[in-house]
Amino acid sequence: MRKTTQIAMARAGEATPEMVKVAEKELLDAEFIRSETAAGRIVIPANVNHSKLSPIGIGSSLTTKINANIGNSTLTSCPSMEVEKMRVALKYGADTVMDLSTGDNIREIRESIIAECAAPVGTVPIYEALGLVDDPMDLHIDLLMEVVERQAEQGVDYMTIHAGLLRAHVPMAMKRTMKIVSRGGSIIAKWMNHHDRENPFYENFDRLLDICLKRDVTLSLGDGLRPGCLADASDEAQFAELAVLGELVGRCREAGVQVMVEGPGHVPLDQIEMNMKKEDEFCDGAPFYILGPVVTDCAPGYDHITSAIGGALGAFHGAAMLCYVTPKEHLGLPNAKDVRDGVIAYKIAAHAADIALKRPKARDRDDAISRARMEFDWERQFELSLDPDKARELRAEAIAERENPADSTVPEKSDYCTMCGPKFCSMRISSEIK
Amino acid sequence: MRKTTQIAMARAGEATPEMVKVAEKELLDAEFIRSETAAGRIVIPANVNHSKLSPIGIGSSLTTKINANIGNSTLTSCPSMEVEKMRVALKYGADTVMDLSTGDNIREIRESIIAECAAPVGTVPIYEALGLVDDPMDLHIDLLMEVVERQAEQGVDYMTIHAGLLRAHVPMAMKRTMKIVSRGGSIIAKWMNHHDRENPFYENFDRLLDICLKRDVTLSLGDGLRPGCLADASDEAQFAELAVLGELVGRCREAGVQVMVEGPGHVPLDQIEMNMKKEDEFCDGAPFYILGPVVTDCAPGYDHITSAIGGALGAFHGAAMLCYVTPKEHLGLPNAKDVRDGVIAYKIAAHAADIALKRPKARDRDDAISRARMEFDWERQFELSLDPDKARELRAEAIAERENPADSTVPEKSDYCTMCGPKFCSMRISSEIK
Repeated sequence: MRKTTQIAMARAGEATPEMVKVAEKELLDAEFIRSETAAGRIVIPANVNHSKLSPIGIGSSLTTKINANIGNSTLTSCPSMEVEKMRVALKYGADTVMDLSTGDNIREIRESIIAECAAPVGTVPIYEALGLVDDPMDLHIDLLMEVVERQAEQGVDYMTIHAGLLRAHVPMAMKRTMKIVSRGGSIIAKWMNHHDRENPFYENFDRLLDICLKRDVTLSLGDGLRPGCLADASDEAQFAELAVLGELVGRCREAGVQVMVEGPGHVPLDQIEMNMKKEDEFCDGAPFYILGPVVTDCAPGYDHITSAIGGALGAFHGAAMLCYVTPKEHLGLPNAKDVRDGVIAYKIAAHAADIALKRPKARDRDDAISRARMEFDWERQFELSLDPDKARELRAEAIAERENPADSTVPEKSDYCTMCGPKFCSMRISSEIK
Repeated sequence: MRKTTQIAMARAGEATPEMVKVAEKELLDAEFIRSETAAGRIVIPANVNHSKLSPIGIGSSLTTKINANIGNSTLTSCPSMEVEKMRVALKYGADTVMDLSTGDNIREIRESIIAECAAPVGTVPIYEALGLVDDPMDLHIDLLMEVVERQAEQGVDYMTIHAGLLRAHVPMAMKRTMKIVSRGGSIIAKWMNHHDRENPFYENFDRLLDICLKRDVTLSLGDGLRPGCLADASDEAQFAELAVLGELVGRCREAGVQVMVEGPGHVPLDQIEMNMKKEDEFCDGAPFYILGPVVTDCAPGYDHITSAIGGALGAFHGAAMLCYVTPKEHLGLPNAKDVRDGVIAYKIAAHAADIALKRPKARDRDDAISRARMEFDWERQFELSLDPDKARELRAEAIAERENPADSTVPEKSDYCTMCGPKFCSMRISSEIK
């Protein structure tokens, strides 16, 4: 078993089996992966205790990754349902999974997930800690560290820690339309206010680093002050916290702990590029892991779309990983169908960015499906689709809705579809041009 | 009744009632609308015979408009279904509707639509003409003009005419992965090839202009050579046609006919800005009316999302109107549900661009829904949503999926949702911070 972290070994000049694997997946040189990991611009979240893991790399020089959040709440879901959501997320292409459970059976759910999941698993340890106290104000650093250590031992690959939200930032956030929308962030802020003390994660950051070092847990520096609406985007509070996250990135790297940085949230289209550049600058190229961002606040029920737009643009401008948003965002806890819708929307966003960034062979699949389309090879089109089941289902629905379903002129493998029919099929017509 | 076109009256210095109405809707000066209409950078599609019309302006200085395509095919749909699709499109916010029927009862469907529709109605006249000949190769210019004239008389506000695809372009298109995917374009190309003659619309463009002048039909110059896949984007064929469209824009303006230009299609994310700038330059600021663009080819079943990403970016970089794409694209004829999904995805794209472009009061609705969200005013959130029914439905679904549905702690108007439950609600927690 590895005794140290990927970044430490990369700096020692060693291309680990994980780096070699990442290089294969990305069609890049292992030496490139090693040197970027050494520089901290690529992270490979790979807890030494996560035996099922097939490692991936996260960094702006690699293909864009997507994360699917699963997990129950105090009101909803049972453990087996969360494992089912994980399976759905992986089936449709999630690169990592975060278990954000806040309800019952947190440890058991996590155990089941890690035991089965080949993708890196992330958590937000403060959620489990909150379940262990009666009042959130009773949280204390020893309990928090105990939870982090136990989760590290369980095999969690990366953890969101809200260490950059300082007391001085709270008044800035109180001026906002939506104040603090990060769950961890709001609890830390209330705790600091209540106890008249600084952020315990910030004050005890070295203890945290010690734990992460032992199992190679990657830190994901949470943005407790991410904007919760367009009105709050790119404000003083957001960037004050980002500056502290930049400082913490330096401390992680110095300690040999892998680190990435979390980002917004809700951001208008015209501010996305600027946000990506600011993180790159403040955090010295640490992989940016963004949530959406949502580009309009007024489409609840469709926030997988509002945020896929922001996510595609974010990835194009340098974000390394996109945290998905499901249609249930702002409305309730996602179910398995929402997980599927969210993952596919984000596969689209990530893939669109990868094509635009000319990642190796990124467009091959698109070119292959286009050739299949031109050849009316429906089965091949379905196979090459991000969601073959959905494509099959919609084509079958259209065929069933023909005016005369008994009409045999649209067999399953016909050389046209119900959109245009045979007479108006542009592909058929243009194929006939000499 | 007006005897001439909006552009002619604008040039004569007159702010028509239509321009005044557009100015009110856009929160801009009527004089600004007049001068931009005179310059051809705004069009107001308003056939003098479309009595139900509430006029809108289309131009890159105005809010982004979206069009919903409806219409039957030779295999699917009945007339009443198309009127129903129109109602759905308008309910969810389509700014214009194109009747692209290619099946039976084309005239009757169009008549029903124009009689009821307050939004501008567009058509592609070659589709009706094709229904009047046995073989597409029998099409001739007199028949095409007859159809255009009859549709103008019926009250069609704008018409797509594929006049820019010339014989010299066909060999360029034949080199492509997907050759020609525009229905009108493929028919014109085959016709030119078969008859060894130039594009009849190009050769008889003055006849067309005469008809448009009489009823103030806005020409929408079709891009018969729009790329049908990423591999074909921004190629020689596409831009050769665009150069001809630029020439035709000049002829329309000279004749006093309003004109806009249609655009792609399938375009990778990194080429969208360049495409918008090229149109602006080649076509001297004529409003650009784009189809998506789709930014990855491999997500059939989700092309409302792939193309909303491209559409948002297109509008941000200058497109004036987005033609929606539904989830059925590449699979079959859209039904009413697909129309709703397509329209909402495009409202999102258009609105996101309008916010980013700082159109007057564009973000007001977002700010209002964010305040309602912070106040746990669910009813107000629903009212302010782009699709209130969907938001209500998903919240109700989440409530019904609670572990213990009999639990009364999540009443309809509770101050939390099933995502976080009461203990983890960041908005509630951060509201408690003094």
